[in-house]
Amino acid sequence: MSDFSRVAIIGLGLIGGSVAAALQKRKLTEHIVAYDPLKESLDTALQSGMIDSAATSITKAVSGADLVLIAVPVLTIETILREIPSDVLVTDVASVKQPVIDACETVYGAVPKTLVPGHPIAGSEKQGVAAANADLFEQHKVILTPNTDTDAESLRRVRSLWQNLGATVVEMSVAHHDEVLAQTSHLPHLLAYALVDTLSSQGDSMEIFQFAAGGFRDFSRIAASDPTMWRDIIQANGPAVIAILDRFLSEMEDLRELIVAGDAEGLEVVFQRAKEARDHFSELKEPRG
Amino acid sequence: MSDFSRVAIIGLGLIGGSVAAALQKRKLTEHIVAYDPLKESLDTALQSGMIDSAATSITKAVSGADLVLIAVPVLTIETILREIPSDVLVTDVASVKQPVIDACETVYGAVPKTLVPGHPIAGSEKQGVAAANADLFEQHKVILTPNTDTDAESLRRVRSLWQNLGATVVEMSVAHHDEVLAQTSHLPHLLAYALVDTLSSQGDSMEIFQFAAGGFRDFSRIAASDPTMWRDIIQANGPAVIAILDRFLSEMEDLRELIVAGDAEGLEVVFQRAKEARDHFSELKEPRG
Repeated sequence: MSDFSRVAIIGLGLIGGSVAAALQKRKLTEHIVAYDPLKESLDTALQSGMIDSAATSITKAVSGADLVLIAVPVLTIETILREIPSDVLVTDVASVKQPVIDACETVYGAVPKTLVPGHPIAGSEKQGVAAANADLFEQHKVILTPNTDTDAESLRRVRSLWQNLGATVVEMSVAHHDEVLAQTSHLPHLLAYALVDTLSSQGDSMEIFQFAAGGFRDFSRIAASDPTMWRDIIQANGPAVIAILDRFLSEMEDLRELIVAGDAEGLEVVFQRAKEARDHFSELKEPRG
Repeated sequence: MSDFSRVAIIGLGLIGGSVAAALQKRKLTEHIVAYDPLKESLDTALQSGMIDSAATSITKAVSGADLVLIAVPVLTIETILREIPSDVLVTDVASVKQPVIDACETVYGAVPKTLVPGHPIAGSEKQGVAAANADLFEQHKVILTPNTDTDAESLRRVRSLWQNLGATVVEMSVAHHDEVLAQTSHLPHLLAYALVDTLSSQGDSMEIFQFAAGGFRDFSRIAASDPTMWRDIIQANGPAVIAILDRFLSEMEDLRELIVAGDAEGLEVVFQRAKEARDHFSELKEPRG
């Protein structure tokens, strides 16, 4: 049943911890070893039985592992890769894929055939291994971005890892991934931070939050996400984020003109189109519940 | 126990229907009569026992009522007021209060002493009387915007109506209400519509929705709200919406500059400040659950 006898997890945050918990819950491997610079995270994971052993270095964690999962902030991947031989089966979970490719090129000269870049579309505004959830990936999508050199068996094994955790795996190019995620995730987070910051710098911010009805409450939840992680993601995906941000700002300027001009019909056209798109796609997604 | 023997509800949508259902559930009145131009809505409410009788005109609904609740789109309030004598106890639920004051001045020459403008901070992206919910106002805020001429007994009775439905009542000026709501509700809805519209007009919008993780999903829910109602709200509160929109767009431009300049520290300062504000206020609200 299990493809892996020893899995090494580098970086025990929400995602690394959730993969460990999910592997344990489903008995998909014999041994999980983890490395994290925070001893506290390793201790928490050991105590809860999420991992079987804690390594004191990346080299020790990786040694003998038949799968290495890198779950660290996107901009620190390069320093991790320096400790990992190029012939080990490796996957990662970074929210932006181009910096992973760039790091591979810097460290190895190319993306190793046994390195399958990946990104589970699952998360939470909660952070850290304490928030790990063995069912986090169930009924979620995982995007893999192999290239033409990727070893077919490596790709199959990484795909089966995620499928065994309950996820649906899709493949796309690195550039396409980074563009889609800029739109569906990175821009929304940027807007949420900006909105909460704008409103809380207004006169009486206590009052603002007190009267926050549905609308603002939904926005503000994602503004509770880790600021350092999101700083890195936005920076790492700068060009794609700027591209969609500019389209959004241009639409906002158009809407502003409609409001100033008192063009009720123009406003309704936009609102109606948005509602139809949303309703259409949320119906298509109905089976997911 | 009950302050009212006969309550007339003008407009049987989500809010009017929920008030009717809440009054019935709590047995707070002897008779609820409703008027709505849609016979279908009246029939639904009669069949479910939400209302006791349906009136064929506003005049008939109001006759003999000791409280009239107007729950119609904000820009149609003036035509409703034309059918209501100035000495009846009236309250409304419009999301913008200045147009209600303006309508009173047009129809009566001033805000009647027995008219207490109100706004329950409760809603849903669902619409119509079929979505009515007897517990919609429980643990929610209701804002009343009386002026110095408002009759004290009328104010007391409207306040007690909402308190009996489980809400917390606060009072503020019309101008302040419209400013606070522009920030906490109207701007977030505008952003949600704009974001969904921007993204769904991109290349493959099916794909965009398919990979919409937490962030975008939260935004897109409020873009399912009634486009006509929101067109009216945004128009009715134009100046306050533009004021906060301009502050928001200016912050977005600053963030854009930080991304283009690769200023990671600058980005983190904003994200961190937003997270702290959000965490601080969500803790304060904890008791509400």
